[in-house]
Amino acid sequence: MSRPTFSGVLVPVVTPFAADLAPDTGRFIAHCKRLLAAGADGLAIFGTTSEANSLSLKERLTLLDALVDAGVPAAKLMPGAGATALPDAVDLMRAAGRHGCGGVLLLPPFYYKVATDDGLFDFTAAAIERAASPDLSVYLYHIPPVAQVGWSHALIRRLIDAFPRTIVGLKDSSGDWSHTQSLITSFPGFAVFPGSESFLLQGLRLGGAGCISATANINVEGIRRVIDAHAAGGGEPEQARATAARKIIEGFPVIPALKALIAADTGESDWARVRPPFRALGADRAEQLIVALSSAGFALNGPGVLKDTAL
Amino acid sequence: MSRPTFSGVLVPVVTPFAADLAPDTGRFIAHCKRLLAAGADGLAIFGTTSEANSLSLKERLTLLDALVDAGVPAAKLMPGAGATALPDAVDLMRAAGRHGCGGVLLLPPFYYKVATDDGLFDFTAAAIERAASPDLSVYLYHIPPVAQVGWSHALIRRLIDAFPRTIVGLKDSSGDWSHTQSLITSFPGFAVFPGSESFLLQGLRLGGAGCISATANINVEGIRRVIDAHAAGGGEPEQARATAARKIIEGFPVIPALKALIAADTGESDWARVRPPFRALGADRAEQLIVALSSAGFALNGPGVLKDTAL
Repeated sequence: MSRPTFSGVLVPVVTPFAADLAPDTGRFIAHCKRLLAAGADGLAIFGTTSEANSLSLKERLTLLDALVDAGVPAAKLMPGAGATALPDAVDLMRAAGRHGCGGVLLLPPFYYKVATDDGLFDFTAAAIERAASPDLSVYLYHIPPVAQVGWSHALIRRLIDAFPRTIVGLKDSSGDWSHTQSLITSFPGFAVFPGSESFLLQGLRLGGAGCISATANINVEGIRRVIDAHAAGGGEPEQARATAARKIIEGFPVIPALKALIAADTGESDWARVRPPFRALGADRAEQLIVALSSAGFALNGPGVLKDTAL
Repeated sequence: MSRPTFSGVLVPVVTPFAADLAPDTGRFIAHCKRLLAAGADGLAIFGTTSEANSLSLKERLTLLDALVDAGVPAAKLMPGAGATALPDAVDLMRAAGRHGCGGVLLLPPFYYKVATDDGLFDFTAAAIERAASPDLSVYLYHIPPVAQVGWSHALIRRLIDAFPRTIVGLKDSSGDWSHTQSLITSFPGFAVFPGSESFLLQGLRLGGAGCISATANINVEGIRRVIDAHAAGGGEPEQARATAARKIIEGFPVIPALKALIAADTGESDWARVRPPFRALGADRAEQLIVALSSAGFALNGPGVLKDTAL
């Protein structure tokens, strides 16, 4: 684990869609660039928040190519490479390796809920071996509320032992702090990211790597402030504000809510669009969300960034 | 719902893999042909038992083309068209429509567990509209133990009302007879298939369409006998035997067990291979399974068919 790993705040970037539901490459690139400009340490494109499993393999590969072609540094990218089918995971990992991405975020194959640790090890080992991208780092993606299938401690240990240069970290979207805590303390040197900024400061204090959080799509600055304050020896007030913003958004369906906020912020109503099985938030609910944020001191502020008027 | 629908025993065909884990097209075609010769009324290729979600989109499309090219009647095929991504479901439905398949079996998009009936309706409607295959019948695939996301009664009603010529039936792999019963009685004229032959006779008596069962891969004749006996006014002893065979197989991981039996039966050890996250059954367990079947009066009998020595 001597190669550099991601740290800080990473954004699972939402994916904009055109009227025909095709990915909107121009808006995607623009959003990625403004997130980096706002202080994101990395972009975890093609995650759960990105509706990545609502995209075809080809759509994901094409978007990745376009993003790198547009000048977004591949080293800042951690594309999701998860798939239920081994060949798809291999294709995604190969593309990330070819572009020199900073890593990939790997879901376990999530269709069969009876998968054993042995079977998940086989899948992961086969994906790494077939991708044949020796410089590519793999971050495991643990999100049992959605994928149902997850990475156990025993399996993580086994994967690190088998692929020490490749398996370098994990995103823990269990929503369970005691689980994140146990991962950080069980695997020293392993880059553990809670999947919510609510656990950011607690994580950093224990040696966590930062966070990869959906709400960073609209509040990367607020989350950054927690990290900077922690580095300066503090962080409690900043954490409280980041958590407050997140709690409001969690009161709504998160992906449609984030897109509605970006639509309102950019004035581009197309941003509100989602692919089924999701539905857009709708104008009334979007207005409720904006009012709730505003009442708590959070104002939309141009390029996808919340301004904290309480600061 | 005036167009002809499937009925009888359909087989969710297992998918053979070569040493490099590529689908073995030749063995797949041979197995499909022998299942039809043994009395299968249809082949539900690309289902859960088929490891379909472990196949790439391209692999599924290529296998379907090869099967039809090899002379397997498209009217006998009910390929799985389920996918988490709308474009993939559309591509699979279009291919099935182009070949004139008897129907498709449609999983709901299964990644997001928070999907609402509204969102699932949107997905299904968009898939049907985009596939633009007016003669293609759609059977809904309800398998909550695996997909977690399912088709509620209210949603089924809404889909039948919106697409009366297209939404013609459902496979119920809930494993819950009271659920199957409720579907058969709630939707007269709708072709309801329990996902297990254990409920076959009960289903037929109520007006169920037959069954689509994993174990039909090795016991299509035994399941057929239940249907024939029911048509002649009986069926209890035949049902008891079919259930007995199934119970033995259910004591093992079902997909590896079925493949192990086909390997033993054909003498082609390659048949035992599965894709990760599954693992092959192994020689010892395969032997245990064969002994258990034999003790209950079931003998392997050449081309993928159990001989019931108790008859």
